[in-house]
Amino acid sequence: MPRPASGARERILETTLVLLREGGLSAAGLNDMVGRSAAPKGSLYHYFPAGKTQIVIEALEVYAPRVGAQIARALASRHPLPRRIKALFSATADRMQSTGFRESCAVGAVVLDLADADAELRSRCAAILDGWALTAAAGLPELPSARRPAAGRHLISLLEGAQLQSRARQSPQPLLDAAAAFSRYAATWIRPAQ
Amino acid sequence: MPRPASGARERILETTLVLLREGGLSAAGLNDMVGRSAAPKGSLYHYFPAGKTQIVIEALEVYAPRVGAQIARALASRHPLPRRIKALFSATADRMQSTGFRESCAVGAVVLDLADADAELRSRCAAILDGWALTAAAGLPELPSARRPAAGRHLISLLEGAQLQSRARQSPQPLLDAAAAFSRYAATWIRPAQ
Repeated sequence: MPRPASGARERILETTLVLLREGGLSAAGLNDMVGRSAAPKGSLYHYFPAGKTQIVIEALEVYAPRVGAQIARALASRHPLPRRIKALFSATADRMQSTGFRESCAVGAVVLDLADADAELRSRCAAILDGWALTAAAGLPELPSARRPAAGRHLISLLEGAQLQSRARQSPQPLLDAAAAFSRYAATWIRPAQ
Repeated sequence: MPRPASGARERILETTLVLLREGGLSAAGLNDMVGRSAAPKGSLYHYFPAGKTQIVIEALEVYAPRVGAQIARALASRHPLPRRIKALFSATADRMQSTGFRESCAVGAVVLDLADADAELRSRCAAILDGWALTAAAGLPELPSARRPAAGRHLISLLEGAQLQSRARQSPQPLLDAAAAFSRYAATWIRPAQ
């Protein structure tokens, strides 16, 4: 029995995400999307009539809440802040290690490939990064509320940059170092309990 | 009078660097290298017989000491640490702004495009990032010497991640925020003068 058509749509988006994580925008070619998802080529044009940019944007819209949930989950526990931060960066390191450091953040890889023609995609990426920063900020209730937005954005810069260094070195260490450094930074905003 | 042949070699490397900064490994196609450098196609094969990987590696070897010198220069002044850190991140923001946020770090963009076949390129990128981290560490003499290596690596993660966010938002703000956050982190390692 053939797979239902909706399966093809999801497989194309999931395949696109892997391609983006591996090599950014330019690695996500239509032929690779079809080849690696084993979806019929016609389904590409059926589900995504506007072409590659539509597919990439829809794939990132699948990806963004998934990463947001990982950030929220790691930071939501009752543990002290350093342990929550470490949980977030360690989980990112574990995911990278599970693919032999072949994949990193899909949004990060897309941003570093953007051309002038990709204005819509750029603004979607900016919005996703902003959303993650807000999610991170909400997970830092120990900080004074006025400081949380900047701390959330700082955490996202660090998460992106440390993934990049972990990928280059094929090592979780840059992500683990980043967790320790962020906790040290965050502690400067936390008043000791009276 | 035709330009000397050595000019063609340099133009190819400089053009390759711009292409890498704009879009990473996949944006640096041989046709673009030739077209944008206005070098004769034969010079590509003459100077770089091993092809694209050789060109990219040689371009990154031109780039690495240049960025290293920018890091060293910004951090070498006699100003207090927060001002030196701000100088480094501001200079990076200015360079990004001068290209309309179309270009960011060439090494960062290459790393997020790496495939399994790019093992040599990956290890060169890791070595360049390590070199920059050591240069940064040497520019943080206020910190206890045992802490400098980790602080240098942290600074590089932050510089890469903040460039990525600045590019997505087309704003210098993530880089300026990163400078303030790094200074705050660094201050936790500095004992006040007796």
